[in-house]
Order: sequence, then C-alpha cells, then structure tokens
Amino acid sequence: MSRGYNFSAGPAALPEDVLRQAQAELLEWGSARASVMEISHRGKDFIALAEQAEQDLRDLLAVPANYKVLFLQGGATQHFAQIPMNFARRDQAVDYVLTGDWSEKAAKEAKPLARVRIAASAADSNYARIPARAAWDLDPTAAYVHVTPNETIRGVEFHEVPDTGAVPLFGDVSSTILSRPLDVSKYALLYAGAQKNIGPSGLVVMIVRDDLLERCPRDLPKIFNYAEHAAQGSMLNTPNTWGWYLAGLVFKWVKAQGGVVAMAEHNRAKAQLLYGYIDGSGYYRNPVEKSARSWMNVPFTLPREDLDAKFLEESEAAGLLALKGHRAVGGMRASIYNAMPLEGVQALVDFMKDFAARNG
Amino acid sequence: MSRGYNFSAGPAALPEDVLRQAQAELLEWGSARASVMEISHRGKDFIALAEQAEQDLRDLLAVPANYKVLFLQGGATQHFAQIPMNFARRDQAVDYVLTGDWSEKAAKEAKPLARVRIAASAADSNYARIPARAAWDLDPTAAYVHVTPNETIRGVEFHEVPDTGAVPLFGDVSSTILSRPLDVSKYALLYAGAQKNIGPSGLVVMIVRDDLLERCPRDLPKIFNYAEHAAQGSMLNTPNTWGWYLAGLVFKWVKAQGGVVAMAEHNRAKAQLLYGYIDGSGYYRNPVEKSARSWMNVPFTLPREDLDAKFLEESEAAGLLALKGHRAVGGMRASIYNAMPLEGVQALVDFMKDFAARNG
Repeated sequence: MSRGYNFSAGPAALPEDVLRQAQAELLEWGSARASVMEISHRGKDFIALAEQAEQDLRDLLAVPANYKVLFLQGGATQHFAQIPMNFARRDQAVDYVLTGDWSEKAAKEAKPLARVRIAASAADSNYARIPARAAWDLDPTAAYVHVTPNETIRGVEFHEVPDTGAVPLFGDVSSTILSRPLDVSKYALLYAGAQKNIGPSGLVVMIVRDDLLERCPRDLPKIFNYAEHAAQGSMLNTPNTWGWYLAGLVFKWVKAQGGVVAMAEHNRAKAQLLYGYIDGSGYYRNPVEKSARSWMNVPFTLPREDLDAKFLEESEAAGLLALKGHRAVGGMRASIYNAMPLEGVQALVDFMKDFAARNG
Repeated sequence: MSRGYNFSAGPAALPEDVLRQAQAELLEWGSARASVMEISHRGKDFIALAEQAEQDLRDLLAVPANYKVLFLQGGATQHFAQIPMNFARRDQAVDYVLTGDWSEKAAKEAKPLARVRIAASAADSNYARIPARAAWDLDPTAAYVHVTPNETIRGVEFHEVPDTGAVPLFGDVSSTILSRPLDVSKYALLYAGAQKNIGPSGLVVMIVRDDLLERCPRDLPKIFNYAEHAAQGSMLNTPNTWGWYLAGLVFKWVKAQGGVVAMAEHNRAKAQLLYGYIDGSGYYRNPVEKSARSWMNVPFTLPREDLDAKFLEESEAAGLLALKGHRAVGGMRASIYNAMPLEGVQALVDFMKDFAARNG
C-alpha cells in the first residue's frame, strides 16, 4: 500500500514532510531522551517549543502585538459555547451570520448563554451564497458579530472581511486559517479547530485582542475563562502537547512553502483547476455562487445519485480518498487544504474525466 | 543519545512498545493509506478503533454494563468544573475530601457552581495521610462526594475505596487508573486525564453510571452535557483522535502484560523497592504515612536542600529523567507509572545509593 491523495474534510491530510519528521523523532525528541509526548509541558524544552510555535504563527499571520494567541482544547464546538460565556451577558444581544451548518451550530450553542440574533442568513438559498453585507440586520449594542468565513460542509467562503463597525467581529476560521493572508486586525477574535490546516484534532488555536479579555467574567470557573488561559500562556492546565508540537511543525512547513501568500497562490490554482473542470464538464455540478465558492472544500454532484457508490468505490481504488459528500448535501466533496498538492487535484480531475467518459 | 528512564509526573512515559508501533504506522495506519490522524472520526475504520479501545478498557476494569465510557477533552481540570455543572444544582451541597493539591483544585473549580463543603481534609498534616473515613463530615443530601484516590504531587493514595452510603462517590483517578484493580461499581463516576497511565495529554476518560446521566441539565450547552456525549458515543464533535488511538494501544499493552492484576504486582514491587530503600537509607526521606503512600508517585528529600541541584544534574546525566520534585514539596519525585520497568526503579535506587555514599 502507499499513501493516497486524501480529500478528507477533517481530521484532514497533514503535510507528508511533517509526518515524516514526527515519525523520525517519535521516540526521542531533540535532546529529551523521551518522546515529545512524554515530557512536562512546564519543562524548558517544551516551553521553548510552545513559544516557537506561537511566534511562527504570529509571523505567518502578522498578528498584531495587542493580540494574544492561545492553544486550547475542546474543538471549535466547545468554543461555540465558551465564547458567549466569556464575552456576553445573558441578556445581551449577540449577532450571528448564518452561512452554513457550522454557523448554525455556533448560534445554537450560544442560545442558552446570550440573546442570539440572526443578523443574516443564506438558508433560503440552501447556503449557496454569502448574504450581502448591506442586507445584514446588525444590532449596534451586540456583544459581537459572529461569522464562519469558510463553511466546510456547503463549501462557501467569504472572500472579503465584512465591516461591522464598532461591534467586535469574531470568526471561526477552522477551515480557512493559513490558506491565504488573513487581516487579523479586522477581527477581535479568531478561532480554529486544528484538524484542517494546523494539525491533529484536539487542539484549538485562538487569536484574541487584549482589550476583549477584560470582559471575561470573574465568576466563571477558571478553566473556562480565556483571560486566565492568556495569563498562564495556555498552561492553566496540561495542554494537548502532541497537538501543539505538530502545529509547530506545520507552521514551520507553511513558512518553508513561502508563507500564506504562497499558500494562497497554491490554493487558488488548485481551486481554479477543480471548479474550472467541474463547470466545463457538463457532467458534474457545484451549486455554490461563483463569488462565494470555497478554496478549501469543493462539493460536487454527479448527474445521477445512483452513480455515487460507483464513483466512490473507483476513486478510492485509484488512491483518491474520502470523497464522500456530507449527508446534508449529498454527492461528493473534495477538501483541498494546504497539505493537498496540485498533483492530487490533477489526479482527481483526470479520474473525474475518465469516470464521466465511461458513465455518460 | 538513547531513551532514558523517565520519571515525569505527567505527561509521563509511555510503553516503548506502544511508541514503536505508533511510529511504524504513523504515515499509514492499517489499510487507510493515511495516518490515523488524517482520517474522519466518523468513518468505519476509526469507529472500529474507538469501539475496540472502549471494549478493551471495559475488559481491563470489568466495567459493569450500566456504566458509559466517554472519551473527552479538556484535561481533568475542565471536568473539575463540568462535573458540578452536570450533577449538582447551584444551591446543592457537594462534598470534597481534600488529600492534596489536586483535590483542592477540584473543590475550588466547583465553588462558583455548587455549594462546596469540605467533608474532610488532611491539610493539617501537610497532606501526609488520608483522613480516616470515620472522621468525615458527610452531608447525606449532597449531590456527590468527590475524592482523589491518588495525589500526584504529595504522593498519597487511598488503598481502600471509602463507603459513602447512598451519596454517589466520584473519583479523579488520573494518576492511578490501570495501575491496579479498581472496583468501578463502588463509584458512580470516575475520570482520568490520560497523560499518566493511558496516553498523551489532551484526552480524558470518564466512566459514569447510567442513572447519573439523567441529572444532566437540559439547559446546559450540549458540548458540556455528559448525557449528550454519551448519546453520541463521545462523537458529539471531533474527538482527540490521536489520543484515542494511543489509549487503545496502551489498553492492548496492559492486556498483554496480564491486565491490572499483573500491573498491580509489578507496581507494588517497584514501590516496595523504592520506599524500602528510602526508609532504610538513613539519607533520603519520604514524609507520607506508610499506609497512605502512593504506588505511582514517590516524593523524597535529600538531607540538605543544597544537594538537590547536584542530584538532579547527576541523575539526568545517568539517564534518570525528570526527578525534580514539585515546588510545593521540594526535593525529588519519582513517578513510576505502569510504563516504568522495574529495572528503571533499580537503576534509580543504585544511583541513589551511590550518590548518598559520595555525599554523606
């Protein structure tokens, strides 16, 4: 057997160079005479690793000095709840923009914790577009506006950062972080589950503006209080050390590729190749408005549903893995995160052409 | 360089056989043609892994059928808060037995969430003993009684399960789980951070009696609700898949060693060797009452504090790693979890003898 081209939506493919390094040093990391998993997070070796990972992420995204970078646990879903716990009073408005299943979930988890308003929703289009900013119904007293800049399931993506004036903008960037430049200063808070473009699952990276941390309520249990995590350098308790380590290797890898500008070129080329072929095929179809298409997640359908099983079986046999679409959408989905090489997308397109010719 | 004997309190040493297997299959796990970190937690391959890990743990601890086994995130510390959120009303008494720093922290995190009572405390002995059960001041209306059967920092351990009558007993078994047989049926809830005897950090294993889950409040955000996690097979959101995988390998390894009965013999022998030497040395000292000494964490002091730095430098040079004691106790601490072989403890004792002879 050999490694396939892995189109999994998440946990997703990691750069092979990163995996090879992790494999080589799995039993003995640096001069530790132990695995990186077996050492104290409070020892000087791990602290150095942790600080370097943070610095590399700061470099990659040009994170301004007045933002903290946190390495947390719980998946983005936990933070769907923890964010209103920290930044909104129960009776305070919080504005959510619904562009797919993940923003819906974020709003739902916030409901017991604050007064959730739906400022805009593309549900009427079956999440095939991004609602125009001009049509958003924002509350100027809201604690924050929450957006999901890339929706993994529907494959829609904001290609511009919306202006929300004086109300802090929060973004769940799980499936777009590091795929292209990101103007951190336009957001008050960004967070991302690691398992798409950063590392393994079980790690969440958060970038949060200093002044916001003053809002964290003092009566919150410490472990849910972001200000406490920030004050302790994300070592309020034992962090996911393996996840932090791998994230650090991925940040180095992104730097070696030329940073997020180079990643954007790479990702744009992959997306253009795949959407271009789909649109011109007369066979496959992507339902998303062109201006809102995701660079990371490309859902597509075949002309007939009864071809799906055959497509999946044959694509997997050809080493093109995990193409099954989400049940909410059906058909196929190719997730083409940073770690997917252009050759992988080319191999997919070649397979799709051949499949279409054989099953016209 | 080569791997040392690693006495880290946690994240702690893993069985070398487990690390070698993880290393061998890091890039391609089973027939996945991808790393186990790169596949969907909802795919059949990972589901099979997850179910097997749960079954192996059930086998090892003879977990009764009316208990759920959960694989969660956040470290034990998060569950210090989440447990009262799920199982106590804000005005309801919850009884905590303080036997060291970790039970103190558990009680402290619960304070904003329930009416915390200290049913017993060994603080007056500087946590050198376990308070006698007869002297506990329990509230029969309490939502639960919380104990920490092994305290990592002070090195004290319950060698019997206390009877709390009709009030459910909860135990944080982070640093003792799988080290010896454990009568799950005497507890209503057990939980453990993985990073001592189970796997890497970032994973928490919880064993909870079915009927207790009916208490979980419906107005809790789903992600904090244990009943929701149980209903979803711990896949309410993306779990720590790497942690779950490694835990599964460790469970297999414990089975191959002969299970928890064999581990107990192994761990008793290691503890006897080390405490026996310390007590007879006339040089080193362990402050804990003999009946309350931990099999897993052995703190000891040298005759003079100014020898500590020399001891640490020379022990590390001899391949005996991470012996520095916790700052709350000073001196040294040898954590001798399941993965520590008897030869490692023998090497430590040999070094200690030699050091004492040279620094009398």
